[in-house]
Amino acid sequence: MDTFSESGYFWKGGQTLKVPMELFKLNRQRLCEALRSHRTLPSDSFVLLQGGTSEMRYCSDHEPLFRQESYFHWTFGVIEPDFIGAINIQNNQSILFIPRLPPSYVAWMGKIKEPDEYKKIYHVDHVYYVDELEKTFDELVGTSKLILVLHGLNTDSGSESKPANFNGIEKFHLDKTTLHPIITECRVLKTDLELDVLRYTNKISSEAHKFVMLNIKDGMYEYETEALFQYYCHRYGAMRHMSYTCICATGENPAVLHYGHAGAPNDRQLTSKDMCLFDMGGEYYCYASDITCSFPVSGRFTNEQRIIYEAVLDANRQVMKNVRPDVSWVDMHLLAERTQLEHLKQAGLIQGDIDEMMDVRLGALFMPHGLGHMIGIDTHDVGGYLDPHTRSTLPGLKSLRTNRLLKERMCITVEPGIYFNQALLNDGYNNNELNKFLNKNIIDKYLHIGGVRIEDNIVITKDGCELLTNVPRSCDEIEEWMNNNNKEIVDKIDYQ
Amino acid sequence: MDTFSESGYFWKGGQTLKVPMELFKLNRQRLCEALRSHRTLPSDSFVLLQGGTSEMRYCSDHEPLFRQESYFHWTFGVIEPDFIGAINIQNNQSILFIPRLPPSYVAWMGKIKEPDEYKKIYHVDHVYYVDELEKTFDELVGTSKLILVLHGLNTDSGSESKPANFNGIEKFHLDKTTLHPIITECRVLKTDLELDVLRYTNKISSEAHKFVMLNIKDGMYEYETEALFQYYCHRYGAMRHMSYTCICATGENPAVLHYGHAGAPNDRQLTSKDMCLFDMGGEYYCYASDITCSFPVSGRFTNEQRIIYEAVLDANRQVMKNVRPDVSWVDMHLLAERTQLEHLKQAGLIQGDIDEMMDVRLGALFMPHGLGHMIGIDTHDVGGYLDPHTRSTLPGLKSLRTNRLLKERMCITVEPGIYFNQALLNDGYNNNELNKFLNKNIIDKYLHIGGVRIEDNIVITKDGCELLTNVPRSCDEIEEWMNNNNKEIVDKIDYQ
Ligand SMILES: [Mn+2]
Ligand SMILES: [Mn+2]
Repeated sequence: MDTFSESGYFWKGGQTLKVPMELFKLNRQRLCEALRSHRTLPSDSFVLLQGGTSEMRYCSDHEPLFRQESYFHWTFGVIEPDFIGAINIQNNQSILFIPRLPPSYVAWMGKIKEPDEYKKIYHVDHVYYVDELEKTFDELVGTSKLILVLHGLNTDSGSESKPANFNGIEKFHLDKTTLHPIITECRVLKTDLELDVLRYTNKISSEAHKFVMLNIKDGMYEYETEALFQYYCHRYGAMRHMSYTCICATGENPAVLHYGHAGAPNDRQLTSKDMCLFDMGGEYYCYASDITCSFPVSGRFTNEQRIIYEAVLDANRQVMKNVRPDVSWVDMHLLAERTQLEHLKQAGLIQGDIDEMMDVRLGALFMPHGLGHMIGIDTHDVGGYLDPHTRSTLPGLKSLRTNRLLKERMCITVEPGIYFNQALLNDGYNNNELNKFLNKNIIDKYLHIGGVRIEDNIVITKDGCELLTNVPRSCDEIEEWMNNNNKEIVDKIDYQ
Repeated sequence: MDTFSESGYFWKGGQTLKVPMELFKLNRQRLCEALRSHRTLPSDSFVLLQGGTSEMRYCSDHEPLFRQESYFHWTFGVIEPDFIGAINIQNNQSILFIPRLPPSYVAWMGKIKEPDEYKKIYHVDHVYYVDELEKTFDELVGTSKLILVLHGLNTDSGSESKPANFNGIEKFHLDKTTLHPIITECRVLKTDLELDVLRYTNKISSEAHKFVMLNIKDGMYEYETEALFQYYCHRYGAMRHMSYTCICATGENPAVLHYGHAGAPNDRQLTSKDMCLFDMGGEYYCYASDITCSFPVSGRFTNEQRIIYEAVLDANRQVMKNVRPDVSWVDMHLLAERTQLEHLKQAGLIQGDIDEMMDVRLGALFMPHGLGHMIGIDTHDVGGYLDPHTRSTLPGLKSLRTNRLLKERMCITVEPGIYFNQALLNDGYNNNELNKFLNKNIIDKYLHIGGVRIEDNIVITKDGCELLTNVPRSCDEIEEWMNNNNKEIVDKIDYQ
C-alpha cells in the first residue's frame, strides 16, 4: 500500500487517519455555491488556482521537502508540486492540470502516473496536462471568457496571493476580486470532514507533548525535546511536517514569544529549576495543530510557578466557558487579560484598580500577543480580519490575529500567557501611566519563570466549543503525569 | 550556554562538535589569496556576498526554518538571515552588515544583539547595519570603486547565484565574473577545520543508520525509519536539518533513485522479504553527510540479495582502493561499472564480453546515476565541472556530477549501485544493442530486490583516501549488527 492505495482516501496506514477525498469535493461544492449566491455568473465561468511549485535552495539543487500551497490544498488535496486546478462554477466540475514529466522521471523520481490515475486518486472530473491549459480553456470558456483567479491580502503576513497564470491567459477576462474573500470565508468555517482531521492532528500532537513530558530530564538541551516531539509525531502519527518551527523555551526564553527560530535555535541546557514553555504541533495532510504546554522540568511546581500557571489556566478556562457564536474575540482577549491581572494582583505583583489597568493596557506588558488565532490548513489560518482597517492600534489588541465575532465551525486557538520579558517590563517601569501599578520587588521574584502559555485548539459549536487538545492541564494533572515512574509508558504510550 | 557562548566557537553542548570561527577566517584568507594571485586588484577592492533571506510560505506568514545560503556560510558562518558580508581583498579585513531590527523584535524573536556582540560571535573586523552599506562603501571603496559579486552557474542545478545588491550599488564598478570560479574552487578543497566538521557529520549519521538497523521491524512503515534516523541525528548530534530529504526505500522502491520526495513520501509498509535502501544524512552547522545503507529487513541476506549486495560492495571498495590525486573520476565510474558487470555476469544475469558491454553502456541500465559527487556545505557540492561543456552525453556518464581529476582535500561520495527498474530494463530488452547481453529469466528473479546502493563519504589524501563513514558494510557485519539481541544497545548506542 501507499498513501492513496485505499481508493478514495489519503491514508498513512495502521491507525493513522483515513481522510476521504470527499473532503475536497465538498469544499469545491461549497465554494461554487458561495460564488453562485454572491452573484450571477455565466455558465462557462471558471475558478483557476495555481498549486505550489517545486523549488531549489538558492543556486543549489537542494530541494526542500515540498508542502502544498494552502488554498490549493483546501480545494484539491494534491500532494505533488506543479499542478493547476480549475472548477466550473455552475456545475462544480473539477479539472486538474498535471505537469508533463520527462522520461528520466521514472529512474529518478518514480513511476509516471497517467491522467486517469490522478483522476482516480483525487476524485476530479477531468485531468489534462499543464501544457494543454490554453487549448482546454479555449474550448471550455468559449463565450464568457471569464476566469476567477486568487488575488488578495493575507492579514497575518501582509502578503498577497499570486494569481494563477498560463501561456495564453491574456485572451480571457480575469476577475481578481471576487474569489479571494469568498474562498477565504469558506476556509474559515470547517466541515465535519475537516474537523476530523483537526481532531486527529490535535490528538497526536497532544500525545507527543505527553511523551516529551515523560522523557524530559535536567541537563538535556532544548533541541533534544524538539527531537522527541518530532519523532513521536512522525513515527506514530505520520506527521512528516511540523505546523511551525518548534518553540522549546526554558529558563528566561519563554519570554520570547517566537523563540526557536534559526537565530535562537532551542540551544539552552535545561536545569531542574526551569519552567518549560513548549509550543509545538504537527500537521497531517496539511492540517495544523498548535499546542503549548508549560510545566516545570522537575515535575513539581514551586509556589511562584504555580501562581503564574494557575493565573493563565484560569484565563484559558474562562475563555472556553464564554465562547459561543456571536461572541467577540476582542472581548475574549479582554476577559483573559482581566482574569490574569486579577491573579497577578492577588499575588501582589501588581496593585490598584483593575478597570484602570485595563484602560491603560497594562495587561499587554505581561501578554503582548493576541489571545489566539484561527487555525486550519495554515497555523495562522486565513480570514482573521474581514476588514484589515478595523485592526486596533492599542497594545495587546493590535497583536490580535482576528477581531471577529465567533461563528459555529470556526477553529481557533485559546492561548493566554503571562511573560516576564525584562525589556517590556522596563518599558512599564519607565512609563508614568503604568509604573504605579507595578510592584517591581515582587515581580523580580518571578522573573526566573520566563513565562507561561497554555494553548488549546477549539472549534466553536452551536452553544459553546469543543476542545480538541488533550494534555494534562491542571498542576495536579501535570505533576501526576510527570511523576508516573512506570517507564514502560514511555514506550507504550499510544495514540489510540 | 547557547550556540555561541563558548567564545570563538559554534557548539551545541555536550559531546557535539566545537567548530572554531577560525574556520571561516581561514576560508576568507584563502579566498583573498586566491583572488590576489589570480590578478592584481586595487587595494580598496572588495568582495560582497549576500546572505540568505527570511522567507514566508506563499502568501501565509509561515516561516520555514531558515538555513543559510551556502557560499555565505562558507565565508562567514552566520546562522541568521538577512546579513550581507564584505571582505577587503588586499588585507582580508571582514565586515558584516546586519539587519536593523524593530523594537518589537525583543518580545517576539529575542534580545536584539548590538554590532559589537556580532563582532565577537563571528570574529569579523567590523559590523555595521545593512542600511549603512552605501555610506560604508562610499568611504571604503573610494578610488577603485571595484566590488566583486557572485554570479555563475551551479552545474548541479543549472541555476545561477544571485549577486549581492544594495541601494546605491550602481555607483560602483561591479565585477561579476572573477569571484565565482575562484570561491567555488576554494570550496572544493576542504581545510582541516572543515574536515573535522565533515568527520563529525559522518560519525553521527553513521550511528543514526546503525540505530535504524537495530530498530527496524517487519510491518513498520518506511516513514517510521525516517523518524528514527532524524530523531537520532537531532537528539544526539544536534543536527536540526537533514542534508537532503531522507530516502527510505523498500520493496521495489530502491529502484527509484530519489524516492522519498513529496510525491513518493516513504509510505510503504515493510515486509520481512524486503531489502532496504536508506539514503540519509544529517548536517551540522551547514556541513553535509550523505550515506546509504542497504540491508535486508530480516537481518539475514538471501542468496540473491547477497549476490547483488556483494557486487556493489566490491565496486565501492575497488574505487576506494584506486582513488588518489590525479585519478579521473570518470575512470572510477567506469571501474565501478565494470566491477558490477563482472559480478552480474558471474551470477548469470548478463552474458557476453564485458568490454563490449562497456562500449554500449550496458552498465547504465543497472546504474543510471553517476558514481558520486563532491560533498561539503551542499550535499551536491559545487565545482563538479570546470567546464560544463565537457559533460558526457553517454548513458550513466552524463549523470556524473563531476568529471574532474581528483585532488587532495576533495570530499566526494562513493556510491555505486545496482537497480532493477522495470522501465529501464524494458528499454534494454527493446534495444538491439543491449538485449543480447540480458538474461531476462534470471534478472526476473532479482526484480524483487529493487536495488542496492552503498554510499560512503571520503576525502582524498596525498596517496589515497580517508573513509569518513563508519557503518557495518560486509554482509557478515550487517547480520551481526542486526542480530545483536541485546536490546539495551538501542538506548545505549552512543556517539563517542
Ligand atoms: Mn498559536
Ligand atoms: Mn549521494
